[in-house]
Amino acid sequence: MLLRNIRNVLKHYNLTPAAIEHKRGRIYIKTGKTLEAAEKLTRVFGISSVSPARRTTSEKKDVIKTALDLARATAKNESTFAVRCHRVGTHAYSSMDICKEVGKQILTNLKHRKLKVDLTNPQHTISIEIRDAEAYVYSETLQGPGGFPVGSQPKVVCLLSGGIDSPVACWLAMKRGCTMLPVYFDNAPLTDEKTTAKALDQAKKLFEWSIGYPQRVYIVPHGKNLETFMHNAPRKLTCLLCKRMMYRVAECVAEKENAEGIVTGEAIGEQASQTLTNLRALNEAARNYPVHRPLLGFDKTETEALAKKIGTYEISIRKAKGCTAAPNQPATEAKLETVKKAEEKLDLEKMVEESVKATKIVTV
Amino acid sequence: MLLRNIRNVLKHYNLTPAAIEHKRGRIYIKTGKTLEAAEKLTRVFGISSVSPARRTTSEKKDVIKTALDLARATAKNESTFAVRCHRVGTHAYSSMDICKEVGKQILTNLKHRKLKVDLTNPQHTISIEIRDAEAYVYSETLQGPGGFPVGSQPKVVCLLSGGIDSPVACWLAMKRGCTMLPVYFDNAPLTDEKTTAKALDQAKKLFEWSIGYPQRVYIVPHGKNLETFMHNAPRKLTCLLCKRMMYRVAECVAEKENAEGIVTGEAIGEQASQTLTNLRALNEAARNYPVHRPLLGFDKTETEALAKKIGTYEISIRKAKGCTAAPNQPATEAKLETVKKAEEKLDLEKMVEESVKATKIVTV
Repeated sequence: MLLRNIRNVLKHYNLTPAAIEHKRGRIYIKTGKTLEAAEKLTRVFGISSVSPARRTTSEKKDVIKTALDLARATAKNESTFAVRCHRVGTHAYSSMDICKEVGKQILTNLKHRKLKVDLTNPQHTISIEIRDAEAYVYSETLQGPGGFPVGSQPKVVCLLSGGIDSPVACWLAMKRGCTMLPVYFDNAPLTDEKTTAKALDQAKKLFEWSIGYPQRVYIVPHGKNLETFMHNAPRKLTCLLCKRMMYRVAECVAEKENAEGIVTGEAIGEQASQTLTNLRALNEAARNYPVHRPLLGFDKTETEALAKKIGTYEISIRKAKGCTAAPNQPATEAKLETVKKAEEKLDLEKMVEESVKATKIVTV
Repeated sequence: MLLRNIRNVLKHYNLTPAAIEHKRGRIYIKTGKTLEAAEKLTRVFGISSVSPARRTTSEKKDVIKTALDLARATAKNESTFAVRCHRVGTHAYSSMDICKEVGKQILTNLKHRKLKVDLTNPQHTISIEIRDAEAYVYSETLQGPGGFPVGSQPKVVCLLSGGIDSPVACWLAMKRGCTMLPVYFDNAPLTDEKTTAKALDQAKKLFEWSIGYPQRVYIVPHGKNLETFMHNAPRKLTCLLCKRMMYRVAECVAEKENAEGIVTGEAIGEQASQTLTNLRALNEAARNYPVHRPLLGFDKTETEALAKKIGTYEISIRKAKGCTAAPNQPATEAKLETVKKAEEKLDLEKMVEESVKATKIVTV
């Protein structure tokens, strides 16, 4: 699955490699565009790290020449360096032989750079990996995003709002292998179109982390529902009723799309609607699917830091009208029975049905 | 609430301060044991950072003398330094005056240390905060754990297993303000007593982060339940049936204890029982309380890093028998109806009732 995802990403960026090989727990990608490919692969879940390497034969002279060339291209004046070698297979030399010889050659040939060996805490490392007939030489390792390959877990329906938190929650579900189907609730006329644009741009940015998978977004008209809650239920319950409705519609989408859960950006206590008591009152509305909240234990600063890494932060903070339906004094400790009593007077079933019927699916 | 938690922590460690003041968004703690108190406060949720400071009057000569004394006690030979000053109130001098004068005095009086001023990237910073009649001088800031004060959210029931993940999940719920009631399921005779000891030690370690709150643990005998599942239901479903039973018992505890949710250490795809499909099949067993899973999006390495910070990692990796009931081929995509069909043949109600009845409550 990871190999397939890697192939899709490289193809998408016109970086289709000459070959991809999976040997002994590592993936080797042969490409002329090493640095570009490596950078793109730092956005593929399941990858722990990427090292753009130069490939050569495992002949001693080839290894030494390649390592020396790399040092020439990368070692800065007056810096400290180390040579590390890892060897698998049968060769006429030991790893230590290679380290010593490469170190000696670097010191001799790059004498004018005034380099010094430091095996403990070098500023620069030349790493050599010899596997049977081949050798790989590199000096840089880029960190991957970790996690599991997208597609290794089933689909989740993600509530995407245009704000800072929800895209981060989506991303964390993708990181653990889920394919993601964003659902955006359009509160027009209680918000403006800029909020919709933000959510769609966020979805697009998130899909950069799951290239090769569908890039569809569900847009559910939700303004009429909100107005119903504002005018026909206690005002302090508006946000809770709104969210419970979102869960219900999300369940319909999950059912239609064969998803296995609903992902939201809620964190304990982050907003009035997200106190532990209110989360309980919310939860009951989702009857057939679990509501997964990967941000439960995140502080806002931690979520923001991750949003910046993902690339959604800048979109989230763009100016937009935001939701104008939130009451001044929202309930912070709503009892389920109070919420249910408020809902009894409404034709929820019809509201869900009409929302689902009016839903648009766009490809971003 | 934060003030109360701080008082409780300091009292617990025999560090009761002379005074605690809350002024203009900061908390000032007057104590003779500055460093010890600061270190303990890095374990109080709601605290962003702690600076052990020397206090003096806002008289210019006092500020300068205190800053110079601190520099004398802390600045290393041949290092670079900066002086920063922040001032609130009316004074005969500006912040800049203070910075310049302190800098000059340090350079003159500590000439033999060969210090250099570096305002951009100093190795050492003398920070001066002047507030009305008082001044605080410090050179060190310890990071707090962030989050919200424990007690600002309701109680949660936390499933604590003795493994690496569950204590981290508990800790994240506490970080967001919840008080925590750990519930340990004792699988004896299918595990050994060492596992129980691990869970209790973990609970004790976690309670160091919520000093002043009850330190009770529920111990539920669960071995008989497990044996029932092993011998009277499809073997591949053992772990799912076991967990669903845990959720049910946890709901009874939550009800009895006025908790508002159940916290578990599950992460998407981390174990066979934690695939997205299986989480859905599990979720259905918790009817009245949400199951909160703060680790949903965490990689194992991330959870381990946090466990080390919290102090539970070393306990988690202690040797113990572990659970011997796990099947060789557990279901990874269990359908809810299959699980429910297996449960139909069992007297679940009685099993829950007997588990709850046999539960012991210990204070650690």
